Amino acid sequence: MPSTRGWTLQDWRAAYEQGQSPKTLLGDLLASLDTANKKDVAWISLIDQAGLKKALAELEQRREQAGGDLAALPLYGVPFAVKDNIDAVGFETTAACPAYAYAPGQDAATVARLKAAGAVLIGKTNLDQFATGLVGTRSPYGAVPNTFKPEVVSGGSSSGSASLVARGLVPFALGTDTAGSGRVPAGLNNLVGLKPTKGLFSIEGVVPACKSLDCVSIFALTVGDAGALQDIMAGYQSSDAFSRKTPTSLPTDGPAIRRGGPIKRLAIPEHPQWFGDQQSEAAWNTAVSNWRQQDVELVPMDFAPMLELAALLYEGPWVAERQAAVEAFMADHASDMNPVVKGIIEKAGNFSATDTFKAQYRKEELVRAIDERLQAVDALLVPTAPTAPTIAAVNADPVTLNSQLGTYTNFVNLADFCALAVPAGFRDDGLPFGITLISGAWKDAELQRLACQWLNAHPTPLGATDCKRPQELPVSPASADTITVAVVG
Amino acid sequence: MPSTRGWTLQDWRAAYEQGQSPKTLLGDLLASLDTANKKDVAWISLIDQAGLKKALAELEQRREQAGGDLAALPLYGVPFAVKDNIDAVGFETTAACPAYAYAPGQDAATVARLKAAGAVLIGKTNLDQFATGLVGTRSPYGAVPNTFKPEVVSGGSSSGSASLVARGLVPFALGTDTAGSGRVPAGLNNLVGLKPTKGLFSIEGVVPACKSLDCVSIFALTVGDAGALQDIMAGYQSSDAFSRKTPTSLPTDGPAIRRGGPIKRLAIPEHPQWFGDQQSEAAWNTAVSNWRQQDVELVPMDFAPMLELAALLYEGPWVAERQAAVEAFMADHASDMNPVVKGIIEKAGNFSATDTFKAQYRKEELVRAIDERLQAVDALLVPTAPTAPTIAAVNADPVTLNSQLGTYTNFVNLADFCALAVPAGFRDDGLPFGITLISGAWKDAELQRLACQWLNAHPTPLGATDCKRPQELPVSPASADTITVAVVG
Repeated sequence: MPSTRGWTLQDWRAAYEQGQSPKTLLGDLLASLDTANKKDVAWISLIDQAGLKKALAELEQRREQAGGDLAALPLYGVPFAVKDNIDAVGFETTAACPAYAYAPGQDAATVARLKAAGAVLIGKTNLDQFATGLVGTRSPYGAVPNTFKPEVVSGGSSSGSASLVARGLVPFALGTDTAGSGRVPAGLNNLVGLKPTKGLFSIEGVVPACKSLDCVSIFALTVGDAGALQDIMAGYQSSDAFSRKTPTSLPTDGPAIRRGGPIKRLAIPEHPQWFGDQQSEAAWNTAVSNWRQQDVELVPMDFAPMLELAALLYEGPWVAERQAAVEAFMADHASDMNPVVKGIIEKAGNFSATDTFKAQYRKEELVRAIDERLQAVDALLVPTAPTAPTIAAVNADPVTLNSQLGTYTNFVNLADFCALAVPAGFRDDGLPFGITLISGAWKDAELQRLACQWLNAHPTPLGATDCKRPQELPVSPASADTITVAVVG
Repeated sequence: MPSTRGWTLQDWRAAYEQGQSPKTLLGDLLASLDTANKKDVAWISLIDQAGLKKALAELEQRREQAGGDLAALPLYGVPFAVKDNIDAVGFETTAACPAYAYAPGQDAATVARLKAAGAVLIGKTNLDQFATGLVGTRSPYGAVPNTFKPEVVSGGSSSGSASLVARGLVPFALGTDTAGSGRVPAGLNNLVGLKPTKGLFSIEGVVPACKSLDCVSIFALTVGDAGALQDIMAGYQSSDAFSRKTPTSLPTDGPAIRRGGPIKRLAIPEHPQWFGDQQSEAAWNTAVSNWRQQDVELVPMDFAPMLELAALLYEGPWVAERQAAVEAFMADHASDMNPVVKGIIEKAGNFSATDTFKAQYRKEELVRAIDERLQAVDALLVPTAPTAPTIAAVNADPVTLNSQLGTYTNFVNLADFCALAVPAGFRDDGLPFGITLISGAWKDAELQRLACQWLNAHPTPLGATDCKRPQELPVSPASADTITVAVVG
């Protein structure tokens, strides 16, 4: 067990400020992992001693370039892990499909930004193959167990990243999130899962799932850490056609969900779906009672258009984006794929161009209907996942139980919303329960402010460790600033 | 010949202010058209005396509701025509396909706004069937002749609307513009063709061509008239999922083509394509020489990414949007369609969902490449159409000559640009030559300001009439205003 277990970014910073060295701390960490890794399915690959030596040399170079100033390297010596569908030099990218593996020539844009801030990548993590799943079981590297109950799924597709952060082995890890892959595993492992506004983090160097929807996501132990990492990872990437510039301002009229300003009113599902899971239902009811004591108004609402949009993603032509990403590989290697994943991607053949445009029209109509419904609501509050199935149950019915997990995550990227999954106490069976805050694009910081208030009022331990949650402090500035800008003539 | 031939909005307003009555002016107009209509292929349907009586009664009601104040009805008694793929109560909508005809229950959103301002709809106009074409020949109602040379195409698909405005029979008419249908016929008939920012005018009540790209467009004799009509027609329509709210501000950084402020630098194609048309080439060279005397800088540029984007629209899966619009009809009535139009729409079957997403990715990349190229350029200046083929030539080679006409129009809606086609003198053979100004979304008013300067420096007669162009005055306010808005936290 490494001495750094459960450390937050602040703990790592403090240790280095007090004179600890990356060589010792990361060396000890790696030694403990090296031994544990033999049976830890969360990892697909792990840095070796030679790799660590090289990474530490690069880190010292960065420190020298910064004139030795640690403040210029906010993540100096902080270890992290990356989902294995995100490129990082020195590691093969497998997307959890060994036959697909390739050695990338450069770091993904997000990985490069983290390294430039001093972070040290120590390994690549397991996932549902090609990020196709919300369960964490669809991988030839093994099903990742839940960090609280090994017979339960970890959630996916970013299963390994969630598992490692929850166990406190790294303070943060990257995932991806197209339909919930960064939120569901956060919810099932008592973590913070930050699904940014689409385009805020570049997806350059990521194996696409649905390229028009994909986001890189952050797993962290605290909201404060996730926010600090967001500030480092965010930025326009001109070479990435899906990168977006943060707008100068948000609309001042139209639906509240798209406007700037603090979050005061939250819509909650009037009749949440639990698929028979009474433990989750009870935990949600407790969480809602607690939220009623926050300084916000909860508005029960029929979520029909959100649920129809969610279904459109899972049942509609967007699966063809997954095929577009891997069709050259599949032409020769279909038999090398996980059969469930293969079966899902092959459904792309059922959809024509005409089907696609019709579904995209329906999407526009549903987003409009959602915006109308959220005219006077600043954000949504939902359960992160309605169920927490066992690995055995998922293996017996892999598609149905998987799609249930996405009930409250699937619609978010299609609607151009940002989301933040946060811990919300525990079920009676000891599993963690998570809730997700959702709002319009570019309101990421507002979600974080509200989540800090929530966790300060209802703190939980960090992940699956017994470390106490520190006071949560939002990173980003308040939103009340105004500036003068040119307007349309 | 009606006495109102070639009147602008100002002429109509002045006549009513001086005591003329709609009953007399519109009655005389209709009587002249009624006789002429027997052989005028520009019309598909025309109001009859009973219809006019009803329309005039409604107009008087509006006037009474306005307390008799003509200023409250800026289009009081102004006749107009509408392309027959736009709904108007009392007229069948045919989309130039008699078997498709239906009687709409309500006016299209744009028609309703014009009527509310006092305009009187007098008929529906011919078009390339289902707005599929840029020639004006693909209609069972006949090929619309060019108003300058009857053996030459009118351009399309909004052929009839352009023909009527060019002849001065109505001061304005509505078209639609997906790939150039509102610009090409304006260019070939010496008109102003306003292709607004996508979503500025609602497309509710329009038979879709490519719903994600369709715009309602304006044909007018002057830029001032087009701008005044834009102000009346613009407006968010919550029931139309493709309607967009005008943003409070435009970006203050990023490519100049997307930023606010006046237009100072214009990109022109370095090596424009003429497909052998030396008359157009010469007219363009003269226009460019004249533009060099305007207070703007012209920057010759390789238009490769614009041309690739144009080809993507015509050769790629967007044709499936046309199928999505009419597939129920085509299932039973394919033999009732124009064979060229039918052949084009049937190509939708060649494209899968996967092809569609891949083409949409390529679109995003090309738009990014275009924006990078236009980093320091405020707008584009292009020939509206590179050629002016005869009807006989188009009949002999209907697809190739049609697609040549779209060289400088096809890419505009995919790139989320607005455009304004304006007259630019005459070719040696007496045909008019047109140029088009193009800029980023929401910069419509800036294009109008520049076009007014151009036409005041280089005035042409109005359409195909011998009326002199009045001083052109832009309608919209200057763009230098600033306001204070909330910014993203």
